[in-house]
Amino acid sequence: MAGNTYGVIFRLTTFGESHGEALGVIVDGCPAGLKIEVDEIQQELNRRRPGQSSLTTQRQEKDKVHILSGVFNGVATGTPIGMVIYNEDQRSRDYDSLKNLFRPGHADFTYQKKYGIRDYRGGGRASARETVARVAAGAIAKKILGLHGIKIVGYVRQVGSVEIETVNEEEISKNPLFCPDPKAAKEMQVLIEKVRSEKNSVGALVEVVVRGVPPGLGEPVFDKLDGEIAKALMSINAVKGVEIGAGFRVVQMQGSENCDPITPKGFKTNHAGGILGGISNGDEIVVRMALKPTSSIAIEQETIDQEGNPAKIMTKGRHDPCVGIRAVPIAEAMMALVILDFLLRNQLVRLKKV
Amino acid sequence: MAGNTYGVIFRLTTFGESHGEALGVIVDGCPAGLKIEVDEIQQELNRRRPGQSSLTTQRQEKDKVHILSGVFNGVATGTPIGMVIYNEDQRSRDYDSLKNLFRPGHADFTYQKKYGIRDYRGGGRASARETVARVAAGAIAKKILGLHGIKIVGYVRQVGSVEIETVNEEEISKNPLFCPDPKAAKEMQVLIEKVRSEKNSVGALVEVVVRGVPPGLGEPVFDKLDGEIAKALMSINAVKGVEIGAGFRVVQMQGSENCDPITPKGFKTNHAGGILGGISNGDEIVVRMALKPTSSIAIEQETIDQEGNPAKIMTKGRHDPCVGIRAVPIAEAMMALVILDFLLRNQLVRLKKV
Amino acid sequence: MAGNTYGVIFRLTTFGESHGEALGVIVDGCPAGLKIEVDEIQQELNRRRPGQSSLTTQRQEKDKVHILSGVFNGVATGTPIGMVIYNEDQRSRDYDSLKNLFRPGHADFTYQKKYGIRDYRGGGRASARETVARVAAGAIAKKILGLHGIKIVGYVRQVGSVEIETVNEEEISKNPLFCPDPKAAKEMQVLIEKVRSEKNSVGALVEVVVRGVPPGLGEPVFDKLDGEIAKALMSINAVKGVEIGAGFRVVQMQGSENCDPITPKGFKTNHAGGILGGISNGDEIVVRMALKPTSSIAIEQETIDQEGNPAKIMTKGRHDPCVGIRAVPIAEAMMALVILDFLLRNQLVRLKKV
Amino acid sequence: MAGNTYGVIFRLTTFGESHGEALGVIVDGCPAGLKIEVDEIQQELNRRRPGQSSLTTQRQEKDKVHILSGVFNGVATGTPIGMVIYNEDQRSRDYDSLKNLFRPGHADFTYQKKYGIRDYRGGGRASARETVARVAAGAIAKKILGLHGIKIVGYVRQVGSVEIETVNEEEISKNPLFCPDPKAAKEMQVLIEKVRSEKNSVGALVEVVVRGVPPGLGEPVFDKLDGEIAKALMSINAVKGVEIGAGFRVVQMQGSENCDPITPKGFKTNHAGGILGGISNGDEIVVRMALKPTSSIAIEQETIDQEGNPAKIMTKGRHDPCVGIRAVPIAEAMMALVILDFLLRNQLVRLKKV
Repeated sequence: MAGNTYGVIFRLTTFGESHGEALGVIVDGCPAGLKIEVDEIQQELNRRRPGQSSLTTQRQEKDKVHILSGVFNGVATGTPIGMVIYNEDQRSRDYDSLKNLFRPGHADFTYQKKYGIRDYRGGGRASARETVARVAAGAIAKKILGLHGIKIVGYVRQVGSVEIETVNEEEISKNPLFCPDPKAAKEMQVLIEKVRSEKNSVGALVEVVVRGVPPGLGEPVFDKLDGEIAKALMSINAVKGVEIGAGFRVVQMQGSENCDPITPKGFKTNHAGGILGGISNGDEIVVRMALKPTSSIAIEQETIDQEGNPAKIMTKGRHDPCVGIRAVPIAEAMMALVILDFLLRNQLVRLKKV
Repeated sequence: MAGNTYGVIFRLTTFGESHGEALGVIVDGCPAGLKIEVDEIQQELNRRRPGQSSLTTQRQEKDKVHILSGVFNGVATGTPIGMVIYNEDQRSRDYDSLKNLFRPGHADFTYQKKYGIRDYRGGGRASARETVARVAAGAIAKKILGLHGIKIVGYVRQVGSVEIETVNEEEISKNPLFCPDPKAAKEMQVLIEKVRSEKNSVGALVEVVVRGVPPGLGEPVFDKLDGEIAKALMSINAVKGVEIGAGFRVVQMQGSENCDPITPKGFKTNHAGGILGGISNGDEIVVRMALKPTSSIAIEQETIDQEGNPAKIMTKGRHDPCVGIRAVPIAEAMMALVILDFLLRNQLVRLKKV
Repeated sequence: MAGNTYGVIFRLTTFGESHGEALGVIVDGCPAGLKIEVDEIQQELNRRRPGQSSLTTQRQEKDKVHILSGVFNGVATGTPIGMVIYNEDQRSRDYDSLKNLFRPGHADFTYQKKYGIRDYRGGGRASARETVARVAAGAIAKKILGLHGIKIVGYVRQVGSVEIETVNEEEISKNPLFCPDPKAAKEMQVLIEKVRSEKNSVGALVEVVVRGVPPGLGEPVFDKLDGEIAKALMSINAVKGVEIGAGFRVVQMQGSENCDPITPKGFKTNHAGGILGGISNGDEIVVRMALKPTSSIAIEQETIDQEGNPAKIMTKGRHDPCVGIRAVPIAEAMMALVILDFLLRNQLVRLKKV
Repeated sequence: MAGNTYGVIFRLTTFGESHGEALGVIVDGCPAGLKIEVDEIQQELNRRRPGQSSLTTQRQEKDKVHILSGVFNGVATGTPIGMVIYNEDQRSRDYDSLKNLFRPGHADFTYQKKYGIRDYRGGGRASARETVARVAAGAIAKKILGLHGIKIVGYVRQVGSVEIETVNEEEISKNPLFCPDPKAAKEMQVLIEKVRSEKNSVGALVEVVVRGVPPGLGEPVFDKLDGEIAKALMSINAVKGVEIGAGFRVVQMQGSENCDPITPKGFKTNHAGGILGGISNGDEIVVRMALKPTSSIAIEQETIDQEGNPAKIMTKGRHDPCVGIRAVPIAEAMMALVILDFLLRNQLVRLKKV
């Protein structure tokens, strides 16, 4: 079974390659009666759009979304919502030289081995461009969550060795780095410009916080909330690690320190990151993910060609020097999809009074 | 939709509570023709069985598995394999005092909020005892993987601040800690005895390595191999973080350092942990997971009762001072289930020659 | 993917062979808070139990159900409900002579071709004995539907050429044929005794009516209510046809006759059988299924052996001369599972007021 | 969970309304390496296209299909195939008068009750126009089946009381009725013209035969081949009954007559319709489905309006007087999807030699 469908109740299926005709998504299971404006979806797409600052790829895409079905007179009818985003600025020729080579750190090698064929233009389906469809669906999910008072906030915590010191959420939208600390933002910008000038790239740490989640979301023992979050975030390009709450710090903690005491007003601490036994506990959900440095760098690297012969490669083209930055709206979208799906699943757990 | 089914092709559905009649599992999709001896499954169950050393809970369970269907004359017939493990040493009265209280760090609170009712005896379904069913199914998965030359090795890397320095896989089965470094094993043992004597508990880091995985496993863009591993491991009790290959270290790395160069003989380094673009690349798969310290400690903690009134609690009973240790065979089982499922899924990806 | 799981929200997974250790089922997704008495389930099992009259097989089975999990103090906790029924009266030796032969009309041939191995004792998993697990799960589904005022009534409409003339639902439980017309019941009994004395068997037509179904159940365009009913009933052993409402009679009807006029009090006629566009319309759901005569007959038939050589076969053993009769409680169970699952799915279709 | 996805391994998700922007489908799980020409898909679409004869609706649609992804240089890459068909001849105003009325026999009433809102233009998603997406996906499925020597042939067996007497498959494409008997075809045509002139409509019986299916397809006990066929065909608009092989005739048959004797050369008869125990037996698969007369007729009918008041309605617009005819290519498409999906599922059933 192929893997281009996500979610159980609020369910999306996506398609599209970096340099194909179009990218798209079908959202099945959107509750009927939801008001949907195309502009609301467009706004989220604009947040992840390339070409907006010198820190990201210079590929120019308007990423204009078209709703083809499922919305009638501005309201969701309960039938599947089809959306399409056409590719515009495809410079496929940039990739002709890479046709027979596997770029290190990329999925070129694994797609070829898996499928026996690959669309080598811009990484094909393995390109992060694929996530535009996730963000479109995530915009709808966010809107529904908003009606339930649930809010998702993502930001960059760290780029290379530059870490934030404070979290001021109002700052996030004020810089192109989705950074909640203006001082760190400047340092990150300097660092990124530096690695870019060196034709290199750098990793990042993204944090997502979800507020207003009611207790009860998550379906043990296999579809736990933390498990599903881990899967959803790990499915974003370049992510190599996910942690919840205290995360990897728990290894060195003792029980007396790690257990969050419960009081009539709530949990005293939040080492759990809002999740106990795979179910939300009503506290803030706090998740972090580590993103590797962009694999596309203009520094010569060792590789092999399709026939297995040794070769050298140097990736030109237009790339983000730090993929972690544009991953912020994508991570928010994936979190919205996870939380909404569990919110819906949870409505069926108890016997209804008739 | 409830969440007690795991896997797409090799698929298990489990049931059972810590202090109920029995735990069990149905494995659907086991390939017909596989030889299955009940002893092979029992051996894996014995590895996770409680009461085997002073480092784990003193609950005495034989965990004897009964195969009820799907195997005829020692061979899998392709029909579902039903297996049951009866509970024996259930001291449910130990839990009577906890009936109205939520143990901090446990799922008592979230199960109550989710379902409006909970089996409070030993944590009910939220108990790690549930994983006995996973290990039984995992034993079958491991056997099939073995026929494909795929081997899974799990071990404890760190307990509190004690970290291994070497990995000698032959050592793993020689100590009750699943520790590949005999020197570290002794220090870990000392540390665990110490926290136990202090009625406390301690966290751990477990690593799992998979060898012999062919390139091509994983189903982008949502069912990536790393995403599914993250979900599967995060679904194990007490896990708070999962990382693949270089994991969280990638944040501080640059592209030139992180990209694994490709040579005719294979990858020069393995920062990717064997996975590129969500698909196995043929290299060793390397995963780590962080386990929090056992939440059941005999130190008084703040909590509330079912009515929301403040209360004090102190968990007596029989508990592992470091749940990370017995998590090793469980993690191996979950990895086996993930890898096998993708191995089977991958057989359908290319057009078959007729 | 193997096929032993049914349902999306209220979901069962079954196991077990005719002459294995036990049959069983895991029900996942039963709403927490439901009161469940083992006796209620047993009553439904007793309705399909063999050996109750001369019209059915003389195999003696108590079909005693054991609940192993998911119910605590008589109430469903929301965790999976494991149930087991042990086989008792297994005369496997009866089948030794059939080991190398394929019984015509049975699944012996197809199981062997599919899996390369088969449990030949009593048909193994292909035996209708498998349905005991469905009835156990169906009993829980029926109980929940009852709370919603939904009632399912199944009965035999026709055996061979003997057809009912009236439907008096109170009569159904008064004869061993589940027949709503006492006069026809007697004629059916005479017919069945006759075919039995001739070592032959006879087909039957079963009708199921569901009352109290609210409009709105069914999920177009692929999971329509009628489609799912057809699948569920066709999955019962020996069923060769399913029709809804006017069924096959529509071929000869004209639009003006077939369309059910709508009035403020409801539909004037019910050619639709309660379903329009794959969604329930609030009227009675009326479904019929055709069951072939039992394939196990004590008349010599032509067949081949496992090596493909021509052979003769005559099935002794204990068999129902008319499998259609005991199919009534099974059909009711499957209908209950379908209706309940769609009832639950439908709760998520509209935007909830927050 | 909404229901716009079909299939497990070869899996389609569709969207689109009769009078919306476009209809479309994502095919996920198409084997990589398959050659796909857009013309091959177009040919199948042309077979179901409206406006081709006086016997079908006069709506003019080119139904031109656009492939947006998943095919690179004419070959499937293993990534999802996105296809779109734009609506062209939408006379939405035709439906303005029906906005507040429920057409008898249509899904207007049930969609309104289910979703609380409906796209009333041409039946919205409940229109048979939706099946254009199925036919596009089915065209790919047919192509793969063809490589396995599997051929699907559908035809009209009966219209009203006019039944075929012979099956000459070469005749099917020679008349606009997909009728294999030229004599009956003429009579059917006369009958349809007559009911049309009377502003009425008429039912039909469609038969589908599948040749070359290997034994072994079908996944008991819930995903049986006949069960899935029944669901797939019943999901086509206007279908009210499905039967396999001898179908409803089995009610009056005896075991000795119904059991198909097995010989070294195959089955002597085919009452089973090619399926035993829910698994294909290698013989021809023979299925019939009953289609009700078109509900849209220009004869005044009783109905209610959205407020529940009694009203009269008369459906003008452009309609097929016998929907059964254009159902032939749709039924073939659904059968292709079922057979292919089980063919792929069956590849995983046995232990592979390594």
